[in-house]
Amino acid sequence: MGRMEAQGLFMKTIIISIGDEVTSGHTLNTNASWIAQNLEQAGVTPERVVTMRDDIPALVEELRQDTRRYNLILVTGGLGPTHDDVTKPALVKAFRAPLVRDEKVRRQVRSFFKKIDRPMAPVNEGQADVPKGFTPLSNAIGTAPGLMLTSGRYTLVAMPGVPSEMRHIMERHIIPMAKKMAGGAVLLRATLRTAGIGESTLATSLTEKGVAMPPGVSLAYLPHFGQVDLRLTVTGKDRRKAQAVLNKAAREIENAVGEFIYGKECQTLEEAVGEILTRKKITIASAESCTGGLFASRVTAVPGASAYFMAGVVAYSNLSKQKLAGVKTETLVRHGAVSAEVAKELAEGIRKATGADIGISSTGVAGPTGGTKEKPVGLIYIGMAHANGMETVKLNLGMDRARNQGRTANDMLVWLWRTARDWPGDSL
Amino acid sequence: MGRMEAQGLFMKTIIISIGDEVTSGHTLNTNASWIAQNLEQAGVTPERVVTMRDDIPALVEELRQDTRRYNLILVTGGLGPTHDDVTKPALVKAFRAPLVRDEKVRRQVRSFFKKIDRPMAPVNEGQADVPKGFTPLSNAIGTAPGLMLTSGRYTLVAMPGVPSEMRHIMERHIIPMAKKMAGGAVLLRATLRTAGIGESTLATSLTEKGVAMPPGVSLAYLPHFGQVDLRLTVTGKDRRKAQAVLNKAAREIENAVGEFIYGKECQTLEEAVGEILTRKKITIASAESCTGGLFASRVTAVPGASAYFMAGVVAYSNLSKQKLAGVKTETLVRHGAVSAEVAKELAEGIRKATGADIGISSTGVAGPTGGTKEKPVGLIYIGMAHANGMETVKLNLGMDRARNQGRTANDMLVWLWRTARDWPGDSL
Repeated sequence: MGRMEAQGLFMKTIIISIGDEVTSGHTLNTNASWIAQNLEQAGVTPERVVTMRDDIPALVEELRQDTRRYNLILVTGGLGPTHDDVTKPALVKAFRAPLVRDEKVRRQVRSFFKKIDRPMAPVNEGQADVPKGFTPLSNAIGTAPGLMLTSGRYTLVAMPGVPSEMRHIMERHIIPMAKKMAGGAVLLRATLRTAGIGESTLATSLTEKGVAMPPGVSLAYLPHFGQVDLRLTVTGKDRRKAQAVLNKAAREIENAVGEFIYGKECQTLEEAVGEILTRKKITIASAESCTGGLFASRVTAVPGASAYFMAGVVAYSNLSKQKLAGVKTETLVRHGAVSAEVAKELAEGIRKATGADIGISSTGVAGPTGGTKEKPVGLIYIGMAHANGMETVKLNLGMDRARNQGRTANDMLVWLWRTARDWPGDSL
Repeated sequence: MGRMEAQGLFMKTIIISIGDEVTSGHTLNTNASWIAQNLEQAGVTPERVVTMRDDIPALVEELRQDTRRYNLILVTGGLGPTHDDVTKPALVKAFRAPLVRDEKVRRQVRSFFKKIDRPMAPVNEGQADVPKGFTPLSNAIGTAPGLMLTSGRYTLVAMPGVPSEMRHIMERHIIPMAKKMAGGAVLLRATLRTAGIGESTLATSLTEKGVAMPPGVSLAYLPHFGQVDLRLTVTGKDRRKAQAVLNKAAREIENAVGEFIYGKECQTLEEAVGEILTRKKITIASAESCTGGLFASRVTAVPGASAYFMAGVVAYSNLSKQKLAGVKTETLVRHGAVSAEVAKELAEGIRKATGADIGISSTGVAGPTGGTKEKPVGLIYIGMAHANGMETVKLNLGMDRARNQGRTANDMLVWLWRTARDWPGDSL
């Protein structure tokens, strides 16, 4: 666990987000994640994010605690002109800093309203009041300036909660400062994205193959919906050395479990599939029953999908399975719509109808109704057809409808990725 | 503002989210907002959300502090089987509670792996270890059970960070308990969901029609992606009175802007559409080009969609537009694939091919490439065909690919909703 040793290099940083709309879950805290990601690139890693309600005494207590524990305290929200804006009153109280009217800020607020051609409400005059000892940070795109207090031990910055204004103040004032304070410390990350293998099997596999992270490198398993991302983090003072350490660790993992790695960084599975299909000039078509178009919509979410995705059908009714994908009546009668045989005919049928290289299909009981003892909710067949034949895979999911459909579309993509990866004709 | 008075009625609640991926901003903290929203409905309002890194000593300190200050402490994340999972070691340390192997949990973990038909890695054996004094909370859809500790003053619950598993444990164990603990304080909410009207037009319309919220009721406008939710909140001590106030306010809004309200609470647009189609026995089919199956996948996400959704085609290539949806070569040549004429023929073609009452279609330039001066990115036609004729709507979106596709599928649903609503044969 390299992280623990390296932590001392960094400023101890906390982000505080103020607002009932955030604690109540009605607004996602995207401000905190933007700040964290941008600070990290500057070499500063936040240790903690606190989201609080619009509550002055609670904020006063939090600020007093944090000034003893952190070197950089970033507050967002609660800086507007209305009654539920609690940050400035809390600063006044926590730091015994009475408000002083700042003429420069007053002129800026006035000129802002002039610029956007709106009358300035009297309530906005108060935005020029700055707690004594605080430095106002200019906000060119809104009315509330940032407020900064620096002591020997810590820097505290309060910013508006409006994302664009917060970002403006961060980019103009805080990130340059953080870079200096971080003093050349670097934190580098790499993400290897896997599919078709579970978190624990992956961990066991790496251990069995003797892959261990050297000091200074940490490895995190980030599972999400049938896939696991492996995220490597390296911290250090020398960017080059850190990069070399990171590359070496990534290579070791790739050597051990490379067959499950479909992409890097933020590449999606459908993008990885699209890249291979384009490169190898493979075309595909889909015939979906229980996934209802979800597979096609994920494939066509990728720009340029028209190069390899010929067409899809959502063959929901039996009649449409016959008419649009050429499934035989006899097969439907003998095996039922949810069967390996129908999955095969759907895949082969759409392949023939469109002339694609690969046909891929789904049929199953997505639920919550429609299950029987022999064919319960979550029983799903996926099929694939190409020049060398037809295959099917049986899934037993047994989750709710959304997850049965989502997981099946994902498994279809994983299967397609493997098939395309092993397809002849790579001209790399 | 009823909130401030009512606050004392509620349990003091904190949510703690564990994970470097959350503090670093790489993962949005959607777990915390889900928990907050669902607790609120149970009468419990969280005061604080803390996001922490994978750091055992920091979590131990946080837990010790929180047990003195909060009555309900909910921890998510850090409960998996790998080395970076810090929650269980922190519980052991904070509560001096050594691990005890729980045979019942062990059987559950084993049977989970059996159910999903995968081998159980030895590392998963450890998931059956429970800190002494903690109650394991069964997790039917994953391997890590929840862990609960109750004392006279507080209840602490640790849950896995995988959203579906967390939700499962919350719904099964925690929300019913929270309802009981909330003991009578009420916060009631009603949401009226609108489509086809903007936020400011909606606000103006309500003002012009003299709709004003009485004291104790607040109205929030929550816009999202071409729709606006109207959320009413009432707080009080008497459930009946609060409910009456809420109902009256909702009725007033319905009287004023009812034609734009498609549903209530968490009903989705596709559910509202499905309800009307089922009730009026209307069948539909889709022929999508630029939305690539997104419309079909939203329609088929609703249980029971097979009653009204006959089939869809994703006619991505020109050839598939002709073969699967009967678009004429001449039309494609004369007007191009992105045209009102092709939108009409797609809608009428799929209607005829499937025998559905309504055919609906999309064709356009989703982007980011493929735009020309005459047909720029974001130019999209949607079409509808039924026994009384064919219509098209031209959209000029000009956003990125994902939003062009998403907004188009949404507009198709809004149009279908209005058409179905005004369709004859309502037997209500």
